[in-house]
Amino acid sequence: MSTFLNDKIKNLTPYVPGEQPKERKFIKLNTNESPFPPSSLAISLANEELSKVNLYPDPDCKDLILEIANAVKVKPQNVIVSNGSDEVLNFAFISYCDDNNPAVFPDITYGFYKVFAGVNGVPYKEIPLNSDFTISASDYINSKGVIFIANPNAPTGINMPISEIEKIVASNPNRVVVIDEAYVDFGGESAIPLISKYDNLLVTQTCSKSRSMAGARLGFGVASEKIIQDLNTVKYSTNPYNVNRVTSALGIGALRDKKYFEDNCAEIIKNREFLTQEIIKLGFTATCSRANFVFIKHESVSGKELYLKLKDKGVLVRHFDKERISNYLRITVGSFEETLALITALKEILGE
Amino acid sequence: MSTFLNDKIKNLTPYVPGEQPKERKFIKLNTNESPFPPSSLAISLANEELSKVNLYPDPDCKDLILEIANAVKVKPQNVIVSNGSDEVLNFAFISYCDDNNPAVFPDITYGFYKVFAGVNGVPYKEIPLNSDFTISASDYINSKGVIFIANPNAPTGINMPISEIEKIVASNPNRVVVIDEAYVDFGGESAIPLISKYDNLLVTQTCSKSRSMAGARLGFGVASEKIIQDLNTVKYSTNPYNVNRVTSALGIGALRDKKYFEDNCAEIIKNREFLTQEIIKLGFTATCSRANFVFIKHESVSGKELYLKLKDKGVLVRHFDKERISNYLRITVGSFEETLALITALKEILGE
Repeated sequence: MSTFLNDKIKNLTPYVPGEQPKERKFIKLNTNESPFPPSSLAISLANEELSKVNLYPDPDCKDLILEIANAVKVKPQNVIVSNGSDEVLNFAFISYCDDNNPAVFPDITYGFYKVFAGVNGVPYKEIPLNSDFTISASDYINSKGVIFIANPNAPTGINMPISEIEKIVASNPNRVVVIDEAYVDFGGESAIPLISKYDNLLVTQTCSKSRSMAGARLGFGVASEKIIQDLNTVKYSTNPYNVNRVTSALGIGALRDKKYFEDNCAEIIKNREFLTQEIIKLGFTATCSRANFVFIKHESVSGKELYLKLKDKGVLVRHFDKERISNYLRITVGSFEETLALITALKEILGE
Repeated sequence: MSTFLNDKIKNLTPYVPGEQPKERKFIKLNTNESPFPPSSLAISLANEELSKVNLYPDPDCKDLILEIANAVKVKPQNVIVSNGSDEVLNFAFISYCDDNNPAVFPDITYGFYKVFAGVNGVPYKEIPLNSDFTISASDYINSKGVIFIANPNAPTGINMPISEIEKIVASNPNRVVVIDEAYVDFGGESAIPLISKYDNLLVTQTCSKSRSMAGARLGFGVASEKIIQDLNTVKYSTNPYNVNRVTSALGIGALRDKKYFEDNCAEIIKNREFLTQEIIKLGFTATCSRANFVFIKHESVSGKELYLKLKDKGVLVRHFDKERISNYLRITVGSFEETLALITALKEILGE
């Protein structure tokens, strides 16, 4: 840290992404990536763009936005695209939070919300999850802040019914409610249909997980036309060309290849249910996950110990030091082969 | 604009990028893109990455940073990479400016500095260029703010000698000085060698222009290790995976292919000098540009009129409404064929 840093950034604790080790080949189940390559249509469209990257991308990303609008059944003016959904989430913090409008989110959720509040110098309030890790809509009714809810939530994987989301949105007409649906395609229910009814709802999604594009960085936001205008003001004030040519082409291909997307999601859901059944036999409890990961705790071995022993066996999973969940592991649901390898490793560790 | 927007963003005027028209095929000389495709090595490395974009990129971009460090002859810990150099410029505003540390820059320069100040809610001070559009180092000695100087400057193309830059950096030991070298490869002189001597200097560069990668978004910053740590704190607090897999591979290829880069820069410089000579014969005056554009004014026809007439003839150039420069055009130096087409169009318009 230099001596030049201003007070806001001086006291900032950055987000810590999951490990991306290079020294050894791991079975990587720690960052919720897709085990499947991107759609061949996506690869082919992107390949055509490579020789044209001397030219700026279309800053309005018209073709990509049209494709997303078709996929989620809204108008193009209800869509903004971003360099990963983190970027559009940050745009929401920049646009709507300030000293009088703190960010409000659960105590156990995507760790980045707290960091976004910090980097933007805005206050935040954490609302504890229930003891079973569910979210009570009643905690967010008539909130005094800008609400951020991941649905399904991370790292718990638990889905909140859309009827509960609607109660929250309806009861906060003077503030924006952000529903972060990074994991919605694995069995959750999207709040996007509500945007025609509520002008204060922003739904964010990502192509990182279900569309196999974590390495290309493409997220998007869906909301009323006015909210999209707000967020575009921030985009054009920070990074007008935030989504590049190649990512845009990959996104168009991935969104068009609907069958590949649906088949991959179905495969992950099948593997998740199989994995859950198998590990329960090994003495684990698991939340009811609707995401591409499971969130599990063993009856006798600590989360930290399991994390380390799995790493030793070449299987990388995610462990959080946070008190309420320090005994849990968040494990990405991979391919069937990866799932079997994980179960084998767990059996060996637990001596079964 | 929604009613939810906070005061800071409500009053923001976003940056307006150059037109990217789709309705007609233009000779596009308005956004300072390279007329040459990216290096074939860059394309080939990027192509290999496409099938792996289901996996996150290395957030630390180790391989890419090593390549940049080699190219500009510094250590890897002196380099940060970003989604276009706009992003690292914004990181500098976020990190170093606040109410007591306003941004300071010339009145005629890259239009985004003012926007970055706005989106970050920090004050700024504009210092008028001299009447010949040069910058006086004396205006920036013992400044009370964080200085941003584009060198060569945009849209004037004028280069400031490195000895003058050093005076500015040396006289502001308690604040960061940012030198934005987006156009340095076309005949400017980089301040990078000064970073070993001054811990308050941040130099930013981009692969958009000289490395034919505007459509891939890759910029970088070079500075003392502590400044790089500061900027990484902001990166990991906003967008840890800001540079994606494909862009990273394109960057590695473009940086390795040194001969292609040098040949392209030499060609642009040659075309710039040819273009300048030819248009002077048509009654234009031109600044002494060291960038991949010329900045010119005609003795009798207004900038606006020329812009419109060129557009009508299928040649797109950039015109700024700003008072001091409203009679000027900024015209990208393209391929030799594009340069000839531009000269022909100007001759027709001027009736020569």
